[in-house]
Amino acid sequence: MDRKQLEQILEDVKAGQLDTHAAVEKLRHLPYEPLGFACLDHHRQIRCGFPEVIYCPGKTPEHTARIFETLAKKGSNIIATRAERSFYDQVQSATALSLRYEPAARMIILEQAPLQTTTGYIAIVTAGTADLPVAAEAEWTARMLGQQVKTICDVGVAGLHRLFEHVPTLQQATVVIVIAGMEGALASVVGGLVDCPVIAVPTSVGYGASFDGLAALLAMLNSCASGVTVVNIDNGFGAAYSASLINMKIEKARGT
Amino acid sequence: MDRKQLEQILEDVKAGQLDTHAAVEKLRHLPYEPLGFACLDHHRQIRCGFPEVIYCPGKTPEHTARIFETLAKKGSNIIATRAERSFYDQVQSATALSLRYEPAARMIILEQAPLQTTTGYIAIVTAGTADLPVAAEAEWTARMLGQQVKTICDVGVAGLHRLFEHVPTLQQATVVIVIAGMEGALASVVGGLVDCPVIAVPTSVGYGASFDGLAALLAMLNSCASGVTVVNIDNGFGAAYSASLINMKIEKARGT
Amino acid sequence: MDRKQLEQILEDVKAGQLDTHAAVEKLRHLPYEPLGFACLDHHRQIRCGFPEVIYCPGKTPEHTARIFETLAKKGSNIIATRAERSFYDQVQSATALSLRYEPAARMIILEQAPLQTTTGYIAIVTAGTADLPVAAEAEWTARMLGQQVKTICDVGVAGLHRLFEHVPTLQQATVVIVIAGMEGALASVVGGLVDCPVIAVPTSVGYGASFDGLAALLAMLNSCASGVTVVNIDNGFGAAYSASLINMKIEKARGT
Amino acid sequence: MDRKQLEQILEDVKAGQLDTHAAVEKLRHLPYEPLGFACLDHHRQIRCGFPEVIYCPGKTPEHTARIFETLAKKGSNIIATRAERSFYDQVQSATALSLRYEPAARMIILEQAPLQTTTGYIAIVTAGTADLPVAAEAEWTARMLGQQVKTICDVGVAGLHRLFEHVPTLQQATVVIVIAGMEGALASVVGGLVDCPVIAVPTSVGYGASFDGLAALLAMLNSCASGVTVVNIDNGFGAAYSASLINMKIEKARGT
Amino acid sequence: MDRKQLEQILEDVKAGQLDTHAAVEKLRHLPYEPLGFACLDHHRQIRCGFPEVIYCPGKTPEHTARIFETLAKKGSNIIATRAERSFYDQVQSATALSLRYEPAARMIILEQAPLQTTTGYIAIVTAGTADLPVAAEAEWTARMLGQQVKTICDVGVAGLHRLFEHVPTLQQATVVIVIAGMEGALASVVGGLVDCPVIAVPTSVGYGASFDGLAALLAMLNSCASGVTVVNIDNGFGAAYSASLINMKIEKARGT
Amino acid sequence: MDRKQLEQILEDVKAGQLDTHAAVEKLRHLPYEPLGFACLDHHRQIRCGFPEVIYCPGKTPEHTARIFETLAKKGSNIIATRAERSFYDQVQSATALSLRYEPAARMIILEQAPLQTTTGYIAIVTAGTADLPVAAEAEWTARMLGQQVKTICDVGVAGLHRLFEHVPTLQQATVVIVIAGMEGALASVVGGLVDCPVIAVPTSVGYGASFDGLAALLAMLNSCASGVTVVNIDNGFGAAYSASLINMKIEKARGT
Amino acid sequence: MDRKQLEQILEDVKAGQLDTHAAVEKLRHLPYEPLGFACLDHHRQIRCGFPEVIYCPGKTPEHTARIFETLAKKGSNIIATRAERSFYDQVQSATALSLRYEPAARMIILEQAPLQTTTGYIAIVTAGTADLPVAAEAEWTARMLGQQVKTICDVGVAGLHRLFEHVPTLQQATVVIVIAGMEGALASVVGGLVDCPVIAVPTSVGYGASFDGLAALLAMLNSCASGVTVVNIDNGFGAAYSASLINMKIEKARGT
Amino acid sequence: MDRKQLEQILEDVKAGQLDTHAAVEKLRHLPYEPLGFACLDHHRQIRCGFPEVIYCPGKTPEHTARIFETLAKKGSNIIATRAERSFYDQVQSATALSLRYEPAARMIILEQAPLQTTTGYIAIVTAGTADLPVAAEAEWTARMLGQQVKTICDVGVAGLHRLFEHVPTLQQATVVIVIAGMEGALASVVGGLVDCPVIAVPTSVGYGASFDGLAALLAMLNSCASGVTVVNIDNGFGAAYSASLINMKIEKARGT
Repeated sequence: MDRKQLEQILEDVKAGQLDTHAAVEKLRHLPYEPLGFACLDHHRQIRCGFPEVIYCPGKTPEHTARIFETLAKKGSNIIATRAERSFYDQVQSATALSLRYEPAARMIILEQAPLQTTTGYIAIVTAGTADLPVAAEAEWTARMLGQQVKTICDVGVAGLHRLFEHVPTLQQATVVIVIAGMEGALASVVGGLVDCPVIAVPTSVGYGASFDGLAALLAMLNSCASGVTVVNIDNGFGAAYSASLINMKIEKARGT
Repeated sequence: MDRKQLEQILEDVKAGQLDTHAAVEKLRHLPYEPLGFACLDHHRQIRCGFPEVIYCPGKTPEHTARIFETLAKKGSNIIATRAERSFYDQVQSATALSLRYEPAARMIILEQAPLQTTTGYIAIVTAGTADLPVAAEAEWTARMLGQQVKTICDVGVAGLHRLFEHVPTLQQATVVIVIAGMEGALASVVGGLVDCPVIAVPTSVGYGASFDGLAALLAMLNSCASGVTVVNIDNGFGAAYSASLINMKIEKARGT
Repeated sequence: MDRKQLEQILEDVKAGQLDTHAAVEKLRHLPYEPLGFACLDHHRQIRCGFPEVIYCPGKTPEHTARIFETLAKKGSNIIATRAERSFYDQVQSATALSLRYEPAARMIILEQAPLQTTTGYIAIVTAGTADLPVAAEAEWTARMLGQQVKTICDVGVAGLHRLFEHVPTLQQATVVIVIAGMEGALASVVGGLVDCPVIAVPTSVGYGASFDGLAALLAMLNSCASGVTVVNIDNGFGAAYSASLINMKIEKARGT
Repeated sequence: MDRKQLEQILEDVKAGQLDTHAAVEKLRHLPYEPLGFACLDHHRQIRCGFPEVIYCPGKTPEHTARIFETLAKKGSNIIATRAERSFYDQVQSATALSLRYEPAARMIILEQAPLQTTTGYIAIVTAGTADLPVAAEAEWTARMLGQQVKTICDVGVAGLHRLFEHVPTLQQATVVIVIAGMEGALASVVGGLVDCPVIAVPTSVGYGASFDGLAALLAMLNSCASGVTVVNIDNGFGAAYSASLINMKIEKARGT
Repeated sequence: MDRKQLEQILEDVKAGQLDTHAAVEKLRHLPYEPLGFACLDHHRQIRCGFPEVIYCPGKTPEHTARIFETLAKKGSNIIATRAERSFYDQVQSATALSLRYEPAARMIILEQAPLQTTTGYIAIVTAGTADLPVAAEAEWTARMLGQQVKTICDVGVAGLHRLFEHVPTLQQATVVIVIAGMEGALASVVGGLVDCPVIAVPTSVGYGASFDGLAALLAMLNSCASGVTVVNIDNGFGAAYSASLINMKIEKARGT
Repeated sequence: MDRKQLEQILEDVKAGQLDTHAAVEKLRHLPYEPLGFACLDHHRQIRCGFPEVIYCPGKTPEHTARIFETLAKKGSNIIATRAERSFYDQVQSATALSLRYEPAARMIILEQAPLQTTTGYIAIVTAGTADLPVAAEAEWTARMLGQQVKTICDVGVAGLHRLFEHVPTLQQATVVIVIAGMEGALASVVGGLVDCPVIAVPTSVGYGASFDGLAALLAMLNSCASGVTVVNIDNGFGAAYSASLINMKIEKARGT
Repeated sequence: MDRKQLEQILEDVKAGQLDTHAAVEKLRHLPYEPLGFACLDHHRQIRCGFPEVIYCPGKTPEHTARIFETLAKKGSNIIATRAERSFYDQVQSATALSLRYEPAARMIILEQAPLQTTTGYIAIVTAGTADLPVAAEAEWTARMLGQQVKTICDVGVAGLHRLFEHVPTLQQATVVIVIAGMEGALASVVGGLVDCPVIAVPTSVGYGASFDGLAALLAMLNSCASGVTVVNIDNGFGAAYSASLINMKIEKARGT
Repeated sequence: MDRKQLEQILEDVKAGQLDTHAAVEKLRHLPYEPLGFACLDHHRQIRCGFPEVIYCPGKTPEHTARIFETLAKKGSNIIATRAERSFYDQVQSATALSLRYEPAARMIILEQAPLQTTTGYIAIVTAGTADLPVAAEAEWTARMLGQQVKTICDVGVAGLHRLFEHVPTLQQATVVIVIAGMEGALASVVGGLVDCPVIAVPTSVGYGASFDGLAALLAMLNSCASGVTVVNIDNGFGAAYSASLINMKIEKARGT
């Protein structure tokens, strides 16, 4: 939209050929649409029915409580990630809102709207028991984003038979999240078994030459199976968010 | 399925209570279903209408020609990635098949089945002109996988106005692939503008402290925008493959 | 095995030409044999007389106690690695099993079957006193796996005379495990003195440019002595496990 | 050798009490006693009206108190960076000077001269709330160096509309300091919006593949926007110091 | 600006209380002002009198020639960086424009507007002869951006006397660019001698543990001298661009 | 000093021609002339029936030819690794010995003694066709060391069914060498399927974040399967050498 | 085997009580009992008048006390490095020896022989106050090794005038130890000022991109000044040990 | 400012033509014109009888020829390092000086003064034949610096007996230079055998996880033997220069 188009709209308003409401709508869709942008963050939430998200590290409990209260006014659900229990306790003390703590996921939850549940589901697979905190973060994120989730634990590649029992569950998912530390090989093996997108989460599980998750991260980025994308180390939230965006698109296309 | 279930199936066959065909189907769905596995690679292709894929590095032209010929017998399309033109010339000399070379994408293509085109589209966005080879690989991969593609070039974050003209195109895509080298900031900016999944491809474009794409890779893995997943440096093929899996799922859900 | 072979087996069962039991056996040996896989982990333990192994990090004491109890029912020995004493105390409090703690090795042990001892032995050599915890993990792992072990401590390359006293012990071993931090040179020196396989364990002993064991790891991977393989930093367990597999193969070949 | 000694030598030459040759020899040793150099550190402070600066890590509280007292005699202001509150408490206990603590900036301040304020201003922009400690260090450093400062918080690139409200403030600054962790993309976006120098400060905010700020550091060094220079991770002080040098040069050129 | 403000503007237009031109101007200054952004890149060039810049790597000679021709129509000067001579030859063959090649700087220059020269100058200092190509890129960039430049070569810290001859030149500069490979110590030494901003350029000069400039980069980021900021390895252009932005601000403030 | 010299000293002492003190002085210098050590390198070869080995990089063809001739006098077989064909041509031109070149393995071979073949065998498994040169080096090394070898190619984890056909071959081997680039997951999968020692060879196959084999190396060092040890990137020779030492020990224990 | 045993063997041969063949066999095992080697560690100490050295990390206080007592019997001085005060307290409680603690150097000292002092001296130079612990370790090590030491503190390159006062002291030293963190530039500057060997000690002083001393380490390895060698990060002991070896050689050559 | 100018100032003061205050001002600018410093580089050469040194990379042959000619006028010897033969040919073509090329050392030499030879010697030890170019650079550097040198080749730690033959030569040296790639263990072994200073040179010999010499560099920095210092990868020149400084100090102390 260039200056001429803008002047034309205004001339039309002036001439009474375009009413104010229609003009506002036209202006709202300027490619660089400032009004739209101004609300975009909220739009995404609203369009997808997603909750607001607070990332706790670096915030004080008091500050976090205030953010909860501000966002709560819109009536949507709210999740806060990477919160230790003691942090949660301090936030809860600082607000009259009724917050809930999911210890395995290290998340604070304010649930004031009913949760949706999709017909398609996201499968979450973990290699070992030490990966469970990341899996819990992914699972609770996806649930709070209205997704159906099926979680399969402790099926590392050193014992493929444990994984094979769950292949049908994996093959019927709309997205699979694979969570693994150490050598991260599970992403490639699962990637070869399914024909839906796979999101791989390297974890910092391991020691020595795992270099806090670097080994798994590099392995997953180099997966020989097509269809695997990767998020940051221990980023269960991010994997679940992307998986939920995919699943929502499919849900909407289904017209359910 | 345990031994007892297996014995029961066989007893039923023996007793004539289950015909051979039904028994084969039951056995085919053993969780660890060997028969199914044996064809799985092809199934993925068949179910999605995807072509066969050959990764050229480390193969001789003669070997590549033979693989083309073997796969060609099934009648499906075939793409071979990471092929220099001289490599293509040698492959073409070694076979009677009529191969095509896409120079920007460095791909060899055998097109013997009509290409599908989805109703939803994948948007591919690049930061700079030096990222074009990776974009071409992504674009041709997606096209050969039957996807509709819209490509937007040279919209790096140092001049946001160039990007903003294309926001509507981005916001209506089903998946966005962001391709950027240097500091890879485009992935985060685009991630904040759309509410569909974003797949980020770091490229080796840059010098010095870009460390052959490491800077962009790390930046993308740490994106502050939710909904961004990442593939290997310069992996245009992988991004397109994942995007196509997502788009196909949506296409099918649409029932189109 | 293709569909035809499977149909033939079923037809033979139907026709009474193959009894159920034989058919099950045939199906069990499908190359991808799911039933067999399901027990594979245990088979390895059973065939080698090895104990079950629990890796503690990331598990709660209660969870660990439950795993001990479940595995204990098979009557085999059990070891749990990387357990601090306080962790052991909590596990012991949570179970009626009589567990033992090896503090130097940081291992919890349940010994309910008599330990085997091989005729051939594994030699474990350490460079410095700070490497002893890794050596203890290796030693107790090997012992619990039924191996005879001879440990030689504090023979770093800066004083070769200390090493030389022990050359005969090294040369008569079936496998040698070399444990060293800092520059990890001991692996190369020992590798040049013996003609059996050497397994090198880099340790995180050192400071500054040892980068938590990276220096020793790289040095060992680049050993100029042939016959040296390497495990992860501080992975005394892994070295002992591999060494035990080798020693068991030799023991069996001896027919002892 | 101070000025008096030099004058004495010259007076002796003049008075004929020292011959030229002996004087040359005496002066030949000047390079190691350079009059000009000996005051250079202070000159910079004096010429720019900058305070003295103490970097606390590695110093004892007592030592720090003594340095404060020595520097305080010149009457200039003094700032001490990277001081925890408990450290401040110990320093204050050890001196009769009246020190002040800025907790967000982790700085100890002795303000005994009136603060200057420039007409031009430095804009400080941060991506997220977790970057605030670094921003506070930058802000208080610049203020104590006599600069006018405008700080804009929490305008990460995932929500560009938040940044856009502040574009006029950014475009009228004489220098912009951009502070961001994670993928550090804000530096490039801001760099494309303004035509003054931009100083980027990567922060250690992030986790996993942020590698304690490495991701943001590399991203900023590879910024596709011209006019961006970079300081060390979390170095709010350094960015403010450089920005102040620039702003002072402009202030002086203005003749204000 | 919220919806109400926008409606009010439109109502005023409709009511004839605001003419179209004034309304356009109001809308132009929406904080997210798309129209203004659309020309921003050019504005920077125009406001500072800076030439257009083309970064050659990844572009074909033909493409580069077309970009030159398009930009040339505005009448401004144009520089293209990182161009080998053979690349220049191909670009020149593909256009009727009269281009010039600066071999030391590896730059292609189209000079169609008279060059400005500032009263203040940028000092460029290099540590060794091998750093000269980076210095040439910085020098020619600055000159084409209308800056006065003084270059001092081969004054590495291993022979401080060579540097000391030039201290007055350094101390009277408005900005100093320090270019050094190997250990990059020159940046700290110069930083301690001057009281203007210093921009440090690490170069890939060195071998072994210089890791292609990493050693110098890290050293410069950790400079113990305040007032030093850093650009990417070998980025002479970027240092000159930032230095020119600073110098232009001072020049304007001077009112010259 | 050889045995004869030692006997002479003792005879001289016995005969009174050398007093004790002088003899002690002579013998004191023994440590630097150790009888046992002096032949150790050859002993290893002789005891195991292994050939002599020459590592070519850094040697001239002429020098290599001379080494071949010197070693050939003992009558044993000789292999030279990492030799390009042109290098082989030059070596062959420089000697009258009848050398053979194995192009896939890049090895020069002098076979003048009959090759042994063990009853137990080493299984070599590769993930992709690009890993074949490393596999060939491993295979020819093992063969020249007298080992029976079975090689299984192109069984990457993205298509497990291809691997599963070969599980019996793997399970009956005495040692398995796993060769894989990219994410190196094959080592963990194979490690979980067999109960013999596994030696993993990461290869430099891959691009981008494979960092020339680093991804596979780290993955293999972090394998979740017990019993996996690792050699340097692309070190097919080293893996085969270690595997041969293991297999020889077993062969001898068998008494075959 | 000590000298007496060797003499006995020879006496027995001489006396005819041991035949030559048996003696050869006894002596053949000498390489592993080398007389010269067996005392080498002690010889170095004795020849140079150096004390015994204990490296504390990884040792228990009790173990350390026992080592002190064993070594103390020889009457030489003993130093133990990297000991925290609490560790010292525990060691002192566990022994009747009268140990001394040097807190700045974190060393435990047993001084039972008079200290030597060389005529030539080692100069130790540090860049900042945070480097003092490393300097103290170097200083006390050198003193306990009998060296004359002159220490110059806090002369970082950002204020060269502070360094220049001490140039004569540096130029008359026999060796200079330069201790610096951050960018480590002091090593190059000092290296250019003196014509004796310089030993550089990078320290872990710094933050962010100093990566715990890596920046200083790389800088020092790349020093543009000839005559600089480097030890591990924070290795004040190692630098002092090497410097002492050099100074002792010179002292002996002087014939003092 | 040279000596004459200084004398003139003093004469003017003496003659009353310049008052003290004006003279002080003139002299205040001395620090940047230090008489003593101005000759320091040459002093080092002159005091030690060392030749001038030219580092070739980054210089053109013509430039190098001019530097040779300028330095040649002083009559001293000159060496130029890191010169390929073709570079030498071009330099020789560009000058009438009679230069010599040492191919193994890649050095150009102008020998116009008689070479000194010290009584004490530097021992140079290399691990493998591939390390010879670095050894040659070290050897020729030391010789041209007037040192006696003894070189021992191909004594890697995998065959200690080869090293042991040379222990007396090592133990009588005044300094030992150890040159090794791969795992660099030779430095630690030699460091334990001698009681003189050891200078370790890591080389880029190796492949894969040697990372172009990083493995050897880290190993040497972490040497468990005291008395080892390290130079940059492949820096044979630097090691020889430091060793020569040490040897010269000893030579002078000897009074020979």
